[in-house]
Amino acid sequence: MKKVGVAILGMGVVGGGTAQILIERKKQIEEEYGVEVEVVACLDKDTSKGARYGLDASYFAADIDEICANNNVDIVVECMGGTEPAKTFLTKALAAGKSIVTSNKEMFSKSWPELEKVAAKTGAGLYYEATTGGGMPIIRMMTQAMQANTILEIKAIINGTTNYILSKMAQEGADYAEVLKDAQALGYAEANPVADVEGYDSSYKLSILSSLAFNKRLPVELIEREGITKITKEDISIAKDMGFVIKLLAIAKQRDGKIEARVNPVFLSKDHPLANVNDSFNAVFLVGDNVGDIMLYGRGAGALPTGSAIVSDIVFCARQDKHARYGEMNNVMTSKDIDEDYPSEYYIRLDVHDVAGVIADVAAVFKKYKVSISQMRQDDRKEIIPIVFVTHEVKKKAMMQAIEEISRLSNVIGVRNVIKVER
Amino acid sequence: MKKVGVAILGMGVVGGGTAQILIERKKQIEEEYGVEVEVVACLDKDTSKGARYGLDASYFAADIDEICANNNVDIVVECMGGTEPAKTFLTKALAAGKSIVTSNKEMFSKSWPELEKVAAKTGAGLYYEATTGGGMPIIRMMTQAMQANTILEIKAIINGTTNYILSKMAQEGADYAEVLKDAQALGYAEANPVADVEGYDSSYKLSILSSLAFNKRLPVELIEREGITKITKEDISIAKDMGFVIKLLAIAKQRDGKIEARVNPVFLSKDHPLANVNDSFNAVFLVGDNVGDIMLYGRGAGALPTGSAIVSDIVFCARQDKHARYGEMNNVMTSKDIDEDYPSEYYIRLDVHDVAGVIADVAAVFKKYKVSISQMRQDDRKEIIPIVFVTHEVKKKAMMQAIEEISRLSNVIGVRNVIKVER
Repeated sequence: MKKVGVAILGMGVVGGGTAQILIERKKQIEEEYGVEVEVVACLDKDTSKGARYGLDASYFAADIDEICANNNVDIVVECMGGTEPAKTFLTKALAAGKSIVTSNKEMFSKSWPELEKVAAKTGAGLYYEATTGGGMPIIRMMTQAMQANTILEIKAIINGTTNYILSKMAQEGADYAEVLKDAQALGYAEANPVADVEGYDSSYKLSILSSLAFNKRLPVELIEREGITKITKEDISIAKDMGFVIKLLAIAKQRDGKIEARVNPVFLSKDHPLANVNDSFNAVFLVGDNVGDIMLYGRGAGALPTGSAIVSDIVFCARQDKHARYGEMNNVMTSKDIDEDYPSEYYIRLDVHDVAGVIADVAAVFKKYKVSISQMRQDDRKEIIPIVFVTHEVKKKAMMQAIEEISRLSNVIGVRNVIKVER
Repeated sequence: MKKVGVAILGMGVVGGGTAQILIERKKQIEEEYGVEVEVVACLDKDTSKGARYGLDASYFAADIDEICANNNVDIVVECMGGTEPAKTFLTKALAAGKSIVTSNKEMFSKSWPELEKVAAKTGAGLYYEATTGGGMPIIRMMTQAMQANTILEIKAIINGTTNYILSKMAQEGADYAEVLKDAQALGYAEANPVADVEGYDSSYKLSILSSLAFNKRLPVELIEREGITKITKEDISIAKDMGFVIKLLAIAKQRDGKIEARVNPVFLSKDHPLANVNDSFNAVFLVGDNVGDIMLYGRGAGALPTGSAIVSDIVFCARQDKHARYGEMNNVMTSKDIDEDYPSEYYIRLDVHDVAGVIADVAAVFKKYKVSISQMRQDDRKEIIPIVFVTHEVKKKAMMQAIEEISRLSNVIGVRNVIKVER
């Protein structure tokens, strides 16, 4: 039977989960997949962290060079997080001919091309299922099951923290700040939540998915990004009344040779399959030209779901005689490939003074910019009147100009929110 | 570049869809997957059926033996349907060392062991993504992405016809017979709908999924099966009022070394991810011990979705140097492996006479069989009173005995329906 040695870098929650699964399931993997996978080395400052998995201090290498020099190591699994030293360590591993398995989305989305270049020289493999969607095998699905399809559209809930916060806001009618505090107390959000709530984490993952979907690398910097911090309980309540839910979606669409790529909160029609993805669950919805709509749903984080994806990569890698190369890495999108003035429907919430003619003034601006309205509601029981519009599709620049002009109308107190709509 | 020749048996809707995708996408498959896939032969009585794909009569073989003798054919794709001659043709192909790709669930679920035996001798591969779930890559997911998991549970909507009928009954408040007629007119249901509405089709697919999930072949005959013909609009309306939807689920659960396997309509909690799978869409929900809940959703039928799955198999097969063997084929479940007396919650609908003591009589029977009630409702505005119970978990035999005894109570007019509940 083929023997494969694994080194784990970083023995924290995910590294530990991976070690636990590999050790508990060794025999089952041998029986079902015909490979003997063994943890032969670890790297962590704290050499006691492997004890609960039977990995005593003797398994712990002094540094990455010792692991690269170890002929028993075939696959290096990185569970350290952070861009450095993870990138340097994995570059060394690939240069030494070791295949790598990583769950590090920020590092991988930014350094994929450089890693691929080193790997191409030595023939080593890159495996990164756990970077995107935790336990969901979305990378396997895109690389092994979409051969007959051109991907037209990706819509994904790929950040558990923001999905948890938006779900709780909807379930409890609570405000963002309040729910964030609870989420932090429960460990669903970091003390510094910026990477999640401002959409950075989703944009790293969307970069990886889009590069695979469109066979051309989409650098993170080209993704339009907007977080959830401006979403209020009013918006969520209005959304519900109008037949929507609010979700942070990572969206990429291919149209007329250009790519629209953005991470932003949207009003999502409550009948869309993604609308029922709640709490910390993730889901990726794809449209392929032949397969049509398809969706994968699962746990986006956690030691064992992420460990499950990593172990799947390890076994998949162990059984390959030759590793996949990523041509898209040499074929990189620039701003010319991006459709920045994409069409979208919009939700717009204004506060206006209760005087005659204000609606007419707003409507005149919409008319000027050819924005047509599909739904409108106003609540005139108060002195300051909230008015809500949902528009038909309109290009982004025209919409932004209209909003800017509306915000300057004398009887408009303020444009309270502008959120894109997806159906 | 590796050249792979494909022969298509049966040039109907699915065979045609497959030819269309292979021909339109030839260049893209070469660029992205490094294999040159070409349709080199067809088999169909009507030799004009390839014309629209540029496959003139010269592509059409006289019989299967001509295809087996053709050295340019590497993969035989079967899109004929029916158990025979499909099985005989594929057996010949495998014996000639050709790998096979099939979408034929009935034939494959019944003949997998025999086909595997022939294939094992010649080293040919068996690919059957399109048998189960149409365009959804559920077979790829189970064979290439669940290496770290023991599958504890499968719950699946894998028949588009019945899901369409139940969805329409719910949306329109219509009766089964009425919706069936519409579905037949629209081509969603066959003139003879038995294979779909009685759950046979779902049981073939559940046999394939369970065999992979539990690494032991589950013959179709061991699956308990019940169709949707007894579901009424009353049941659907009561379900909705009580927070459920009615779905035909294919269910397999692993518990204490035994397997519970059944296809039946269920009251499904409206918060379950499968509850929102409507119309002709399919979905497979799995629980893995490490990955937790995971679900794949997509189009279960149609020329292009099914063609997409077939082409995915062709490309996957074309890139393998060695094909997977299925050890579970020699390891077959018998009735001893099956838990026939499994626990479940139940929905029970009775009609009773409006007389004192009838509820007490029914409750006494439930008490005798230790059936405990979680929800009950009655509507006493009529002379014949409908009463509905939802029970807590109870074993099947005890429940069936209780139902039988209740049906004989003097003031019970009839037990109108008994439907299992899933949450």
